[in-house]
Amino acid sequence: MTIGHTIWAIAEGYIPSQSTGTDRTLISHETACILNAGDVDADITITLYFKDREPAGPYRLAVPARRTRHVRFNDLSDPESVPRDTDYSSVISASVPVVVQHTRLDSRQPALALLSTIAFAVTG
Amino acid sequence: MTIGHTIWAIAEGYIPSQSTGTDRTLISHETACILNAGDVDADITITLYFKDREPAGPYRLAVPARRTRHVRFNDLSDPESVPRDTDYSSVISASVPVVVQHTRLDSRQPALALLSTIAFAVTG
Amino acid sequence: MTIGHTIWAIAEGYIPSQSTGTDRTLISHETACILNAGDVDADITITLYFKDREPAGPYRLAVPARRTRHVRFNDLSDPESVPRDTDYSSVISASVPVVVQHTRLDSRQPALALLSTIAFAVTG
Amino acid sequence: MTIGHTIWAIAEGYIPSQSTGTDRTLISHETACILNAGDVDADITITLYFKDREPAGPYRLAVPARRTRHVRFNDLSDPESVPRDTDYSSVISASVPVVVQHTRLDSRQPALALLSTIAFAVTG
Repeated sequence: MTIGHTIWAIAEGYIPSQSTGTDRTLISHETACILNAGDVDADITITLYFKDREPAGPYRLAVPARRTRHVRFNDLSDPESVPRDTDYSSVISASVPVVVQHTRLDSRQPALALLSTIAFAVTG
Repeated sequence: MTIGHTIWAIAEGYIPSQSTGTDRTLISHETACILNAGDVDADITITLYFKDREPAGPYRLAVPARRTRHVRFNDLSDPESVPRDTDYSSVISASVPVVVQHTRLDSRQPALALLSTIAFAVTG
Repeated sequence: MTIGHTIWAIAEGYIPSQSTGTDRTLISHETACILNAGDVDADITITLYFKDREPAGPYRLAVPARRTRHVRFNDLSDPESVPRDTDYSSVISASVPVVVQHTRLDSRQPALALLSTIAFAVTG
Repeated sequence: MTIGHTIWAIAEGYIPSQSTGTDRTLISHETACILNAGDVDADITITLYFKDREPAGPYRLAVPARRTRHVRFNDLSDPESVPRDTDYSSVISASVPVVVQHTRLDSRQPALALLSTIAFAVTG
């Protein structure tokens, strides 16, 4: 089943440099959850936008057919890592339709805070 | 009143295995809230997508006419239960138009964390 | 400026009966924020859907031209109050286009939890 | 790449007057994240709507080409500051297409609470 769009935008982006968690699951992070429900592998490129410099990227990754991938922006490193404590936005392009949702886990304080929203689907 | 779409996607999915709550309402859980505002019962099928295996499902359930149902992914068991601490996505198909919203309650730490977002409505 | 749609749906609904807050702003509550950016007053009707009974309502209220109103479901009382600790969904109809966003503040535990999402806009 | 719409609405708005955080990043705040992925600078105007008075604004700012700007409503001051502990809504107009996402960080209590949602995109 082919579901989704080929361009998505996430205007909000911010990775706190601090965490109180002690393992990977509880470290402050931002995630783009990408679902490829179709039968063709998806080539993904991510571009990051900042307040005061030219965009970074493209970051390249793949989401195979009938698979989902929860991409942590914290883990992006090629061509450069994502700066912490810095406002950014992202645009995600896919070679076939996918669905993108954005989530942040903030553990700067002992109590977790979570946010999530569907990304903006660019139609046409 | 017929409201909604017949296919919805939730790219984010993750059920923490840990909770600090002591009753059902405070156990970490993910929910798909499905509203059938129309006058015809809705047959629902849910398919789950993972990172490294073929999809699971279909899970089957019904939402009667003029009723809402808040489905906990934690409770799905046929054909198989939903693994904890594992990234997944879901696609929800309905025999008549419905509206789907996604919510997670995370009680891994004593302070609750909540997230919610409208699911992605597949048009046409 | 006329912005929005005339029918909106919020599939998620749940008012916890418990709060730890001591004033109105910190009591657990669900809110539908309704913006009427146009120049004509909006007559609003809200219908609530449940798991195991017929819908409740309509609840009637107004949002004047160029005004916003943050409606607490906790405060709805005519024709009946909204049950606590109970899953529900809502459909909001307006006589002119408006924009609806849904928010829950959960203060069952000392640390607040918040969720928010745009409601589902019914097109056409 | 031109992505987005030229009018966006955020029905939810509320800046708590209290915070427990000690630095700027942890003060309770509301943010509109505005992404201009295109090659033309965007002139932005923000109008605020209230419950019981005429709208405030327009507030004017710019988002250069290929840049993002996370605008804190707390910082708006011209033509007037945004009242705290007061319900409001906002409409954001842009001279070229942009993408807008809304986030609130609530630090009234020691544990952070976060919410975020895509703004409502006005089509056509």
